[in-house]
Amino acid sequence: MTLHGYWRSTTTFRVRAALNLKGLAYAWEPVDLLAGAQHAAGFVAMNPAQGVPALVLEDGTVLTQSLAIIAWLDALHPEPRLLPEDPLARARVEALSHVVAMDIHPVNNLRVVDRLHDVFGATQAQARDWMIHWMERGFAAAEAMVAPEATFTLGEAPGMADLCLVAQLYNARRWEMDLAPYPNLRRVEAACHAVPEIAAAHPDTHQTPEAIA
Amino acid sequence: MTLHGYWRSTTTFRVRAALNLKGLAYAWEPVDLLAGAQHAAGFVAMNPAQGVPALVLEDGTVLTQSLAIIAWLDALHPEPRLLPEDPLARARVEALSHVVAMDIHPVNNLRVVDRLHDVFGATQAQARDWMIHWMERGFAAAEAMVAPEATFTLGEAPGMADLCLVAQLYNARRWEMDLAPYPNLRRVEAACHAVPEIAAAHPDTHQTPEAIA
Repeated sequence: MTLHGYWRSTTTFRVRAALNLKGLAYAWEPVDLLAGAQHAAGFVAMNPAQGVPALVLEDGTVLTQSLAIIAWLDALHPEPRLLPEDPLARARVEALSHVVAMDIHPVNNLRVVDRLHDVFGATQAQARDWMIHWMERGFAAAEAMVAPEATFTLGEAPGMADLCLVAQLYNARRWEMDLAPYPNLRRVEAACHAVPEIAAAHPDTHQTPEAIA
Repeated sequence: MTLHGYWRSTTTFRVRAALNLKGLAYAWEPVDLLAGAQHAAGFVAMNPAQGVPALVLEDGTVLTQSLAIIAWLDALHPEPRLLPEDPLARARVEALSHVVAMDIHPVNNLRVVDRLHDVFGATQAQARDWMIHWMERGFAAAEAMVAPEATFTLGEAPGMADLCLVAQLYNARRWEMDLAPYPNLRRVEAACHAVPEIAAAHPDTHQTPEAIA
């Protein structure tokens, strides 16, 4: 299968980490969001939502939306589990995942920040303030939802919520956000970075040649 | 169980419809988002993310995030199914749900639009344009993802994606958006409105006395 994504995209990071944890090999097809490759006709035919990631299977089936992809991977390759079998435990993992994937990430998405520039003439500093604001709100909620006694967000192994968090904290550090108020989240982040499969999914290991040059 | 929500909230609409389709009785506890009730200490203790809906079970367990709640309801009360058992079919329903629940709704959320007013001095017309813009993008994607031969988005019975869509189209109509370019979505909307359990969940049937007065 082939993962279409952007090296710095936090949603792509989530799926790379899930594929690695499942031990699944995949081809990597970069989609340059800054150059608008997600709006090209060929990509739109594959994913009408014009976003990354998209996972294309050997038979041509296309899966989109990072959390839907991760849940599908988890159903087909249940070890290690990224979503608990118990419905209530699963609902907790999903709710924490959604604090990142719904309350933070979409509001800070590249296209949204671009629109702040285009429509409201937002400066770079205002764009940064915008992103930090939503991360502060979301991280405060997540900090309260993490089990303080666990290694990861809600247990002793990384799951969907951990992948959402480690990716969003990567973004937070990119914008030099103060993470001191979130000791639980920083603990989870460190635990994730210590997992080789997650470390191997980090954006820095998938930079485009242009970004490295 | 008790559903804490706001009458006009599309995420609350989704969960009301799911509860009705499952035939589950619940108490209704209004949370006045316009008055800031979601930021009151008692509510924050229940849901640190300070959003609606929240579903409180008889034993005090609190479930948050509308799609996590719906998936939990579906696991405990599988008939009628809102998410297919087959992993690939489920991934398609989730991906379409997320086009609404991640790509549209969070960017148009009350708190985001409030911030456009506060930080960028957005006028009412600019706020409306902002909301319409994200709905146009998301609806174009959703229109292409709906199965044209099906009654609902992806089959012959309403599922999670239909609940997300009918709620978002309610919001679109509130802002007098032109829905002519989306015949598939309008067909799904009409099919949903013809389902008594979904019709009974409509925001107009849950208005606060102040809103009615």
